[in-house]
Amino acid sequence: MADPTKILLAEDQIPTSWVNVLPELPGGALPPLSPATMEPAGPDDLSAIFPPAVIEQEVSAEHEIRIPEPVREALGLWRPTPMYRARRLEEAVGTRSRIYYKYEGVSPAGSHKPNSAVPQAYYNQQAGITKLTTETGAGQWGSSLAFAGSMFGLEVEVYMVGSSFDQKPYRRSMMRTWGAEVHRSPSDRTEAGKANAAFETGSLGIAISEAVELAAQRPDTNYSLGSVLNHVLLHQTVIGQETIAQLAIAGETPDVVLASAGGGSNFAGIAFPWWREKQRRGLSTRFVATEPAACPTLTQGVYGYDFGDASGLTPLLPMHTLGHGFVPPPVHAGGLRYHGMAPLLSAMVKAGEVEARAVRQNETFEAALTFARTEGIIPAPESAHAVRSALIEAQQADEAGEERVILFLLSGHGHFDLAAYDAYLAGDLEDPEFSAQERDRALAELPQGAPSIA
Amino acid sequence: MADPTKILLAEDQIPTSWVNVLPELPGGALPPLSPATMEPAGPDDLSAIFPPAVIEQEVSAEHEIRIPEPVREALGLWRPTPMYRARRLEEAVGTRSRIYYKYEGVSPAGSHKPNSAVPQAYYNQQAGITKLTTETGAGQWGSSLAFAGSMFGLEVEVYMVGSSFDQKPYRRSMMRTWGAEVHRSPSDRTEAGKANAAFETGSLGIAISEAVELAAQRPDTNYSLGSVLNHVLLHQTVIGQETIAQLAIAGETPDVVLASAGGGSNFAGIAFPWWREKQRRGLSTRFVATEPAACPTLTQGVYGYDFGDASGLTPLLPMHTLGHGFVPPPVHAGGLRYHGMAPLLSAMVKAGEVEARAVRQNETFEAALTFARTEGIIPAPESAHAVRSALIEAQQADEAGEERVILFLLSGHGHFDLAAYDAYLAGDLEDPEFSAQERDRALAELPQGAPSIA
Ligand SMILES: Cc1ncc(COP(=O)(O)O)c(C=O)c1O
Ligand SMILES: Cc1ncc(COP(=O)(O)O)c(C=O)c1O
Repeated sequence: MADPTKILLAEDQIPTSWVNVLPELPGGALPPLSPATMEPAGPDDLSAIFPPAVIEQEVSAEHEIRIPEPVREALGLWRPTPMYRARRLEEAVGTRSRIYYKYEGVSPAGSHKPNSAVPQAYYNQQAGITKLTTETGAGQWGSSLAFAGSMFGLEVEVYMVGSSFDQKPYRRSMMRTWGAEVHRSPSDRTEAGKANAAFETGSLGIAISEAVELAAQRPDTNYSLGSVLNHVLLHQTVIGQETIAQLAIAGETPDVVLASAGGGSNFAGIAFPWWREKQRRGLSTRFVATEPAACPTLTQGVYGYDFGDASGLTPLLPMHTLGHGFVPPPVHAGGLRYHGMAPLLSAMVKAGEVEARAVRQNETFEAALTFARTEGIIPAPESAHAVRSALIEAQQADEAGEERVILFLLSGHGHFDLAAYDAYLAGDLEDPEFSAQERDRALAELPQGAPSIA
Repeated sequence: MADPTKILLAEDQIPTSWVNVLPELPGGALPPLSPATMEPAGPDDLSAIFPPAVIEQEVSAEHEIRIPEPVREALGLWRPTPMYRARRLEEAVGTRSRIYYKYEGVSPAGSHKPNSAVPQAYYNQQAGITKLTTETGAGQWGSSLAFAGSMFGLEVEVYMVGSSFDQKPYRRSMMRTWGAEVHRSPSDRTEAGKANAAFETGSLGIAISEAVELAAQRPDTNYSLGSVLNHVLLHQTVIGQETIAQLAIAGETPDVVLASAGGGSNFAGIAFPWWREKQRRGLSTRFVATEPAACPTLTQGVYGYDFGDASGLTPLLPMHTLGHGFVPPPVHAGGLRYHGMAPLLSAMVKAGEVEARAVRQNETFEAALTFARTEGIIPAPESAHAVRSALIEAQQADEAGEERVILFLLSGHGHFDLAAYDAYLAGDLEDPEFSAQERDRALAELPQGAPSIA
């Protein structure tokens, strides 16, 4: 077909390397700091819980990092993922713009998360590690690591936020089907869990603490994180590289690239390869990270040093933050309820290379429904933020009398989020407000003594 | 890659026609009978509820039927579907055979069912119909028709078996997300529903009656069925045709082709194009339809004329049956709990062209778990029957010192069936026995006066 709706690549077009923007980062890369000394945290601070290859990637000065062949083979179970021209969506909203979307929901766990779970499992197996611990909120990351662990023969132990554990039994079953152990957090298996037993519903902060505590104690056990850190964003760049090949087939160059931003990994995955392409080819492509108005890290946060977790156990990261003590209202996009943002993405926003946009929960589900009824795929609530953002771009283009080429990332499907759609369809979906007071309270607790970077 | 694990086709390799085996059917095609007269039921018996194109396909003597371009385009949202070499599974079970599987779970509804829902919606829209009614048990077919209706601007009204309606809220939400109305059956919206109000948990038989009753009453409304009939099997032949192209890329010819059999449509979809290929190329390929030991229509039923529904409202179909009053025990593969079998598939089994195999629930989930932990995809319980069957073939081949090329159809994913996996993992999964007494009781109620075909 001359003008296809779906653009597929062959298996040998899975990228052979990851795109590392760290050496080109505008403004240079700022180091994480040890909270005790306010000195740069070195590789040694990480070696108790991460394998050497991952620590190297965290600080690598290479522009491209080769993907090991066993990783590429495992990614081949679902990659290359399809890219679509959203013709039915375009028609339904009556835009003159051309909308393309890349779809990561075809992965076994149903989102982009396995793109990093697979190499993390591989590098740990290579380092002689036999077990990984991790936390999961809604379950996307825990499922992905459970899957990846089963691919490389690693045990996986997941600490799942108590309230999600109770509400999402099927994500739990999915992890167990792949052979993982799943524990309700706070648990009585760790000191962190016992100390927080009173917080019955749990939190990501507590679950991280439990997983890190166990990994730090045992030489055969490491910890694995599903977003925020440089190596996770690096692993996601297979997404953007594939879209470069796919839009070339369509004969298009994007005017704007959009994705949701929780910890920043799916956004970086699609945007960073295009950002490099922009530098090299002198494109005028814009990039817009889209976050929930209820947890507007990039649009209402500050740029400074803060803890990555709620309890203050991690090194300090240079990033946009609402304060590590900020508790986002319970929007259904659980994967976007994070107080901070990846340092790499934060630096890009700070430098003006990436724009940020916040969208509300109800308009997001409205867009998701329009998408489901035209394109046929039911988006994950997180991914729906990118759909909404694409429709805003299309509308702005129409108002300006422009035709834009819009590329967005549909990061996952909503098969485990249909309760949220139910609430929307019943007219019961809340549209929680952002609390600037809550943010100010949380920002007042930012760690003292870190250098200002704002 | 010379020897790829995943074999993809390009969008322009979606088949352009369906394979119709009706004119070549061994033993000739037997007509459905009107139960009142025991005379062949003609097209007129069907025109109140089906559009002309579908009725034509039901009796077509053409060997190939062209797929309308708008249907092909809608199928292009997820077709061609991937085929995989199951290398990790082969390794895990230590077989010398080569196992390939075709995966239909990438469709929006998560199974092969949209392959027929899309053309059925299209032909009805072309015939000026504005609304479709249907029944659904576990929800796969209802979801597929809801999706297809949204593609072609048709209203869809689904009668969902009461017990499933209560147990599977997410399949319900999925249908509503695509814009369908979903009613718990028995409902108070039809005479059939009111008459059966006492059967609180409902049954497929009652739900069919409700949907057919409404369609027969309204000129703008038709009824749509998801398996059993000739046109449904026809629509599924896109699957097998794609595997012919895909195995050619791998340079392989299958020794055996396997799929689960509920009403017979996914089995026919993969097997019939290969069966024709076998005639034309003189292959020695075997075909094995695999059913649950708890509902063993092909292996423990009789070949005769019986009603398609439990309540005796439909024409009599020439098929394998356990008796329309047979109530299968509640195995988790809800899509395989049907008393009859498609006439086309039944005739193939009767003629010795297709073998049948029954497998038990626990061995099936054991195979599904092995598959999930090696290949990464969590099979629908129905599809798991094909996985189990493939492992039996591999074992038999190893015992015979042979290397077989095994091709099976993974008809869908198990994202909405994780409660069943939970039960299996907890060791709580029942392994219900087939009741020969219950079958004999049901067979005693076969309609009298129909010609014997056994
Ligand atoms: C489907 C989906 N999209 C997006 C996100 C947000 O994470 P990130 O910003 O790291 O991509 C998540 C996180 O769980 C997710 O599950
Ligand atoms: C995933 C799946 N496989 C198989 C079947 C069995 O139906 P058929 O024999 O018509 O393919 C169903 C029916 O609902 C199904 O949902």
